[in-house]
Order: sequence, then structure tokens, then C-alpha cells
Amino acid sequence: MTAGDTPEAIDRTLRVIGDRWSILIVRAALRGIRRFDDFCDDLGIARPILTQRLRRLVSNGVMIKVPYQEHPLRHEYRLTDAGIALSPVLVALVRWSEEHADGTPSPTALVHAPCGTELEQAFWCRRCRTTFGPAAIRGVERAAGDVGSSKDVPDGSPAH
Amino acid sequence: MTAGDTPEAIDRTLRVIGDRWSILIVRAALRGIRRFDDFCDDLGIARPILTQRLRRLVSNGVMIKVPYQEHPLRHEYRLTDAGIALSPVLVALVRWSEEHADGTPSPTALVHAPCGTELEQAFWCRRCRTTFGPAAIRGVERAAGDVGSSKDVPDGSPAH
Repeated sequence: MTAGDTPEAIDRTLRVIGDRWSILIVRAALRGIRRFDDFCDDLGIARPILTQRLRRLVSNGVMIKVPYQEHPLRHEYRLTDAGIALSPVLVALVRWSEEHADGTPSPTALVHAPCGTELEQAFWCRRCRTTFGPAAIRGVERAAGDVGSSKDVPDGSPAH
Repeated sequence: MTAGDTPEAIDRTLRVIGDRWSILIVRAALRGIRRFDDFCDDLGIARPILTQRLRRLVSNGVMIKVPYQEHPLRHEYRLTDAGIALSPVLVALVRWSEEHADGTPSPTALVHAPCGTELEQAFWCRRCRTTFGPAAIRGVERAAGDVGSSKDVPDGSPAH
């Protein structure tokens, strides 16, 4: 591989979640919202925009459309494993936007479910079993054997 | 405030780091790269694009341009506090790109400096003193008094 692979993967990621509505839709889904009308009410998003963004999130494997009622047929939207794996990106983006892009805190907070405390984000070392901040980050060349073992895109199975 | 504030703050964030080169420049800076030629070599980025992106990152308060030599005058680029605060976004974006956007691992890894173990990202509960994953996230309405206490944009002082 060459160093050029990473920029292209980032381009693909930005095409999936590089706009504000896609970010906010996935964040709302992470809070448990699943139905079209509930996304509309929660986000104040225009219905045609929501339709288009949900379609794109489904086609990119981030969400899956699942029937929840048969007469009449109704669908809801759930995050796939790949969608749930976006949570660190979304939480970090919204948090930085609130703190550094002249924003105000969102009217809803994401909390640790068992105790209701607002969550924080940390880097974690599996070996030392400790959290740490950006000051303790260092960059290293990867060993040749570690490069190229990319994972496949998940198959879009529901994961809620 | 209204729910509309958050989308606008996210738009501002995406204007700052919503393109692949800005993301990779800030990530390289997080690995300790500071000089124009070193960014060029590390990222394989064209010099005019690097010039333009560095200028924008400086004007947005994410990086600061600092002289490191007087004869002849030479500058280097350092992350500000706001730039360092982007690290959870960047780490999460690059990781998701590698794993879910059909990418391959970057040739450099970010590790926990004291032990050299590749870092992981986790949500952290200050009260329970535990890390947790997306399954333990819940959304709650913020109390009225908590909303509207946004922080100011940092003044761009060096933080390395």
C-alpha cells in the first residue's frame, strides 16, 4: 500500500457523514430515535432532506430500513454495526462544535445509561488499563505485517 | 436557544476539518510534525494545497505559525488548544475510515507514549470511573440551566 490509501478512505467517510444532517441523524439514532416522524420532530429537518439522507445512510451501510408494522406497512431506521461504530466520531464532532466552533450545547446530552452522568471521551490503553489525553499520544511506523490487514465493510445487519 | 444552533456549529466545524487534507495535516501535527517540508514528505501532499490548508487552519485557530529560526526566518506550525482538542475527532475518523470505508491501515499508528501500545478510544464515566461502549449510551434532555453556557473560541495560543 501507499500513504495515498488513507486520504481516499477519508474521502469515502466524508461522503457518508461529511454533512451536518447526516451527523445529526446518526447521533439521534444513537439516542434511540428510529422513526421518520420522530427524526423530523427531534431535528427540525425538512422531510425531503431527511428522506434523501436516510436513503444515503442506508445505501452506505450505516443504517438499515426494517418493517415494524404490516397493516399499513411502516418502516423504522436502525444503525448497523458500522453505524454504531461511528459513535466516537459523532460524539467528538458535536462536542468540539459546541466548545470550539462558537456553538451552544445541544438540548440533549449523551449520558452513561446506568448512572445518567454525561459521558466523556478518552483514549484508552489496553495494556496499562488507563485512560489518557492527547498529550500522551505518540506516532510510530507500523510494522510491515500490520499494514494491509483491513477489515471488510460490514454486511449491514441490524445491531440495535 | 433552539435546536437549530447545533447544526450551524457543526457546519462551522466541517468547514474547518471537513476535507481529507485538513484532517491528515492535523493528525500529522498530533504525531509531532511541525515543519512545512516534513508535512510534504509525510503526507505526499502538493505544496500549494498544503500552503492553502495551513493558512486556513491558522485562520480558524486550529494551528499557530511560530518562528523557529531567525537567519533566515523560518516558521513551524503547532496545534493550538483547539487543535489538540480535535484529536478525538481525528482519531475516530481515521479509525472508522480504515475499518469501514474500505480503507487499509495507515502506515503510522498512534500509540500510548509510555508503553507503545496502539491507542483505543472509549467513552468514560467520571462518576463510575469506567470505560464503556456505544451500547451504554442514553440520550437525555439537558436541564434548562445547563444549556447556553457555551465556551468561547480559544485565543490560538500555542499548546505544544
